[in-house]
Amino acid sequence: MSSIAHELAKKQKEISVSEFFEKNKQILGFDSLTRALITSVKEAVDNSLDACEDAGVLPDIIVQVEKIENNEYRVTVEDNGPGIVKKQVPNVFARLLYGSRFHTRAQRRGQQGIGVSAVVMYGQLTTGKATKVKSRISDEDVAYECELILDTKKNRPDIISEDFVIWDKPHGTRFQVHVKGKYITGKQSIFEYLKGVAIVNPHAKITFIPPEGNTIVFERASENVPPPTKEVMPHPEGVELGEMLSMAKYTESLKMTSFLNTEFSRISYRVAREICELAGVPPELRPDKLTLEQAGAILEAIKKVKIMAPETDCLSPIGETLIRKGLKNVLGDVKADFYAPPITREPRVFAGNPFIVEVGIVYGGQLNKEESVQILRFANRVPLMYQQGACAITQGIESVDWRRYGLEQRGGQGIPFGPAIIMVHVASTKIPFTSESKEAIANVPEIREEIELALKACARRLKTHLNKAAKRSKTRVKFEIVQEIIPMIAQKTAKIVGKPVPDLAGTITKIMNVVWVDDEVRFEKGRHHISVKMYNYTPKSQSLHLHMLVPFDKIDQKTLKQQPLEVRDGNKVTWDIKRLSSAATLEHTFQLHGVPQDQYVENEIYVSGIDPASIIGVEVLPGDWDLEHLRITEEKEVETPEEGEEAEVDYDEGKEAISDEE
Amino acid sequence: MSSIAHELAKKQKEISVSEFFEKNKQILGFDSLTRALITSVKEAVDNSLDACEDAGVLPDIIVQVEKIENNEYRVTVEDNGPGIVKKQVPNVFARLLYGSRFHTRAQRRGQQGIGVSAVVMYGQLTTGKATKVKSRISDEDVAYECELILDTKKNRPDIISEDFVIWDKPHGTRFQVHVKGKYITGKQSIFEYLKGVAIVNPHAKITFIPPEGNTIVFERASENVPPPTKEVMPHPEGVELGEMLSMAKYTESLKMTSFLNTEFSRISYRVAREICELAGVPPELRPDKLTLEQAGAILEAIKKVKIMAPETDCLSPIGETLIRKGLKNVLGDVKADFYAPPITREPRVFAGNPFIVEVGIVYGGQLNKEESVQILRFANRVPLMYQQGACAITQGIESVDWRRYGLEQRGGQGIPFGPAIIMVHVASTKIPFTSESKEAIANVPEIREEIELALKACARRLKTHLNKAAKRSKTRVKFEIVQEIIPMIAQKTAKIVGKPVPDLAGTITKIMNVVWVDDEVRFEKGRHHISVKMYNYTPKSQSLHLHMLVPFDKIDQKTLKQQPLEVRDGNKVTWDIKRLSSAATLEHTFQLHGVPQDQYVENEIYVSGIDPASIIGVEVLPGDWDLEHLRITEEKEVETPEEGEEAEVDYDEGKEAISDEE
Repeated sequence: MSSIAHELAKKQKEISVSEFFEKNKQILGFDSLTRALITSVKEAVDNSLDACEDAGVLPDIIVQVEKIENNEYRVTVEDNGPGIVKKQVPNVFARLLYGSRFHTRAQRRGQQGIGVSAVVMYGQLTTGKATKVKSRISDEDVAYECELILDTKKNRPDIISEDFVIWDKPHGTRFQVHVKGKYITGKQSIFEYLKGVAIVNPHAKITFIPPEGNTIVFERASENVPPPTKEVMPHPEGVELGEMLSMAKYTESLKMTSFLNTEFSRISYRVAREICELAGVPPELRPDKLTLEQAGAILEAIKKVKIMAPETDCLSPIGETLIRKGLKNVLGDVKADFYAPPITREPRVFAGNPFIVEVGIVYGGQLNKEESVQILRFANRVPLMYQQGACAITQGIESVDWRRYGLEQRGGQGIPFGPAIIMVHVASTKIPFTSESKEAIANVPEIREEIELALKACARRLKTHLNKAAKRSKTRVKFEIVQEIIPMIAQKTAKIVGKPVPDLAGTITKIMNVVWVDDEVRFEKGRHHISVKMYNYTPKSQSLHLHMLVPFDKIDQKTLKQQPLEVRDGNKVTWDIKRLSSAATLEHTFQLHGVPQDQYVENEIYVSGIDPASIIGVEVLPGDWDLEHLRITEEKEVETPEEGEEAEVDYDEGKEAISDEE
Repeated sequence: MSSIAHELAKKQKEISVSEFFEKNKQILGFDSLTRALITSVKEAVDNSLDACEDAGVLPDIIVQVEKIENNEYRVTVEDNGPGIVKKQVPNVFARLLYGSRFHTRAQRRGQQGIGVSAVVMYGQLTTGKATKVKSRISDEDVAYECELILDTKKNRPDIISEDFVIWDKPHGTRFQVHVKGKYITGKQSIFEYLKGVAIVNPHAKITFIPPEGNTIVFERASENVPPPTKEVMPHPEGVELGEMLSMAKYTESLKMTSFLNTEFSRISYRVAREICELAGVPPELRPDKLTLEQAGAILEAIKKVKIMAPETDCLSPIGETLIRKGLKNVLGDVKADFYAPPITREPRVFAGNPFIVEVGIVYGGQLNKEESVQILRFANRVPLMYQQGACAITQGIESVDWRRYGLEQRGGQGIPFGPAIIMVHVASTKIPFTSESKEAIANVPEIREEIELALKACARRLKTHLNKAAKRSKTRVKFEIVQEIIPMIAQKTAKIVGKPVPDLAGTITKIMNVVWVDDEVRFEKGRHHISVKMYNYTPKSQSLHLHMLVPFDKIDQKTLKQQPLEVRDGNKVTWDIKRLSSAATLEHTFQLHGVPQDQYVENEIYVSGIDPASIIGVEVLPGDWDLEHLRITEEKEVETPEEGEEAEVDYDEGKEAISDEE
């Protein structure tokens, strides 16, 4: 028995990080040949985009994939970034766990210091060939070029050859690797990945030269580099006890208050003193003397003190317009019925890292009704292509009861079925990926919760649309029945009894006894054509106020027959509709000009000054044009526990765990 | 611009592997509080089981979870393994990427050298407390005890305190860590995990002391340590070019032939010479002189030469009995209808690593018809609890068209619905997990393909059962209709016309004109009661041969009324049924003794010597009792492209990619 312990001891040894990943290349995204090729492109492109943004350059990236033989491909990615200084080139490209962004709390694509070196390692493992890198920084006359391999036993770069060469590019980096892979087109392809990148990075120009066929250029859609996201200190929410102790041990601050103030975001000196007082820790205490108990008390105090939400300038959400655009791009020629106005949530924090969740949904039209909804996932403006099932985004979608929002879903969980695309973007100073391949976001309770809230908020907008559509179609059916069948009955009866057909207008209005409002938006020749028809199917004449949420300054006044009674805040417009006679119809029309098509997709109409019981097809104005208030109520609804079942979301750890960590 | 390159260069630095994982603890399985607690238990238990098996000891493991305060728990795992020598204790428990099993090609639970040290790191990060380890090896009089933390800046153990103490255990290890977590019961709980472990490791005794409630003991169900799995050399299939070059560079062999023979499994000297010849590489070549081109040629030659399948003694599948037992255990008091005989596939290879896939399916009875099927995943005898969606097992299940096998599934993909549990075990000398948390198997084409083939093979067995059940129920309905309605019509008609009710036996037989065979198995008081009823619903007397697949030596001869005509291979039994008169019924019964209930769940019956058109409820014997042959045909079917649609499984990389890598 003891000899076994000694024998086992002999086998115990250190594993170099590169040996580890060489044997576990699937963790890095090299589990199959197609994925390996996409991963190779992806890591290099992510690096190029980050470099350009660091330097405030509009990215101009060229991606080339060439077939060498059988399964061997050569991938070349060239950018116009700031370039890399000679000394760092080997480390950046051929050393795992080496990088500039790991210790930084800022929204970047790369954060691990693994990506592109992993590609170099995979390339040499599968083809036996070295990687070629060329880089030029703007104050050098020549570019530095070298051939690299990664010495996996030591995790250090091995420079096979190096030289200075002429390169007409003023600055930039060119990366060229041979890898074993498989090139495909269609779903989960390099093309799809680059398209996704182009959509959410409209400031980037991406040129793709595929192994076969024509070069594809994704042109720049915007000339503005997104405002640079700032580095931030950790937000105090969710910082762990051991982390606090370790930070206190290594800080340069000499007092607890200055430590708290300088090493965390959103802690002013006043708040720092308040925290110390509440925790019973002397504000003058040297941080490196902080005991375990005191650190615990500080964390408890942080939970009780009111601390501002995190800064938002460290984050770069995609925004409503790009979400819509993204969805439209994915749809291509397929027409959809309805774009639910996208949701961008307020920033929240997990483990000290601010993050924002955004959701967009598109529905109906030519989208396939018989399939699962399509899910589009993005993290820090990078499309996520693989590992869908492992991702908190997918798990969030699966745990929403979509039946409430008009999609089919067996048992109220799982990916719903129906003609819809759901797009979710998570932006954070640190995306907690489930693995080094960065394809799925881990099921961190705070993030998961935000995803679900954002999904539900957007889903409610979808639901409102579907309800409206359903209501309208019901009303229409009822009208058609009444208007077709009653005259038929009258005719038949008249014929049988041999009498003339009676005038039915009065009968129909008596049966219906409502004012019906039916509206429509058409987009034609760059203009929105808006029509609101009011049918008075009551026995007497009716008056009402018609309220619409519409940008008044965009209404072409020539097309507006009736001037409004009132315009508030530029877009709350009220018309006075007077004496609509019994059985009469009034069509209220106008046109909008200069509004992008997708900025006005549905009329938002309310009425007032009429008995709510006798109006259909439209909602009665709740309060006095207090739509702002309306909105806020809707948002609030999300977070109040009133929504009973929805609050009891079944996370892996249940609701309690989430509040535990807040 | 250039200043940016220099500024970025300043930020470039090395990241220690422990810093990396400290900031990415979700990768290690610490993404939520419940999962963190389970992961802590799991890593320690996996280590204990591996240690016991290394030493050939029957494992006796005690797991205790105590609630300290709020979210803080103390986890203690104690085993009776061989113990760890003093010098190695700190490295084993407080250093990432350090271990004995990483460089070994053998089926083990731990392979990464990360697990338990990650728990130590997570514990200190979240509670600020050190981990306590006690270990005794059998030739020492005392145990070594120490308190450890992991210095994350250096990835080295820090010994806080150490001592030699008296421990009445002759050998073993005790691990105690404080972690932030959340204890739950039910699904995805520590209890469920330990139950899973106990099921597939019947030789282990596991005692669980939960924070509240009674101690639970999973008693040992077998006194045999599973035969130790052997370490093997890589199988030449799927070895990468770069890997081959690197092996050739570092080998001690002086000739290519001896290199190939000693560093790979299944390459004899003869085969090695054949490979060299085919590759045009001199057999006498010094391996370290091997060029890139020559290495490529060697790999091409390996694909062409016939090389034996991998050894199986390096793998330890669960086996049919334990799969059944496992499923039964999961069911608990819930009764199921049918256990499809489990499938254990032949070993295959990915990237030089042998692996085996096993599948079991249980169906019907009290299992919920309205929910998705339940999936049980195991890898190297460890239950996988999280990340179901990321796992090749789940993806395999999702891409099988279960509608063909009697389960509901919208669109023929996704997790099917229906009253079933599907259990899949993958055993390998190296499980390619998607991340360091070891909860999901990566979508490696070779493994994915085997999983699907195993699922389909097992599903076909389910389908056979369901077909039989459906056929029988149809036949029964038809009989009931004929036997109830015809007499009713006769009576009614007789009454109306005022005549006596005629004898209907002749009429019914004329209408039916078949021999109906209906069989049953009941298990009562330790015995199988088997009954085969034959109804002759034809106008004349019939004779036939009745064939059953039944272990003849287990038939209680006292219960067998009619001796068989013939018994082949001990279990192919044929009876001669003579002159069954028209409208007569014959019941053929006997009992089995000494057969475990789940070893005989359904009769396998065939008939011959009768017109196939006039027999229902049973199949006609295909060929002359050539059931072996039947089986082989069934297996073959799986791999032939005849199954059209099934062959076109939509892997991430398509079918082609798979054959590429083979």
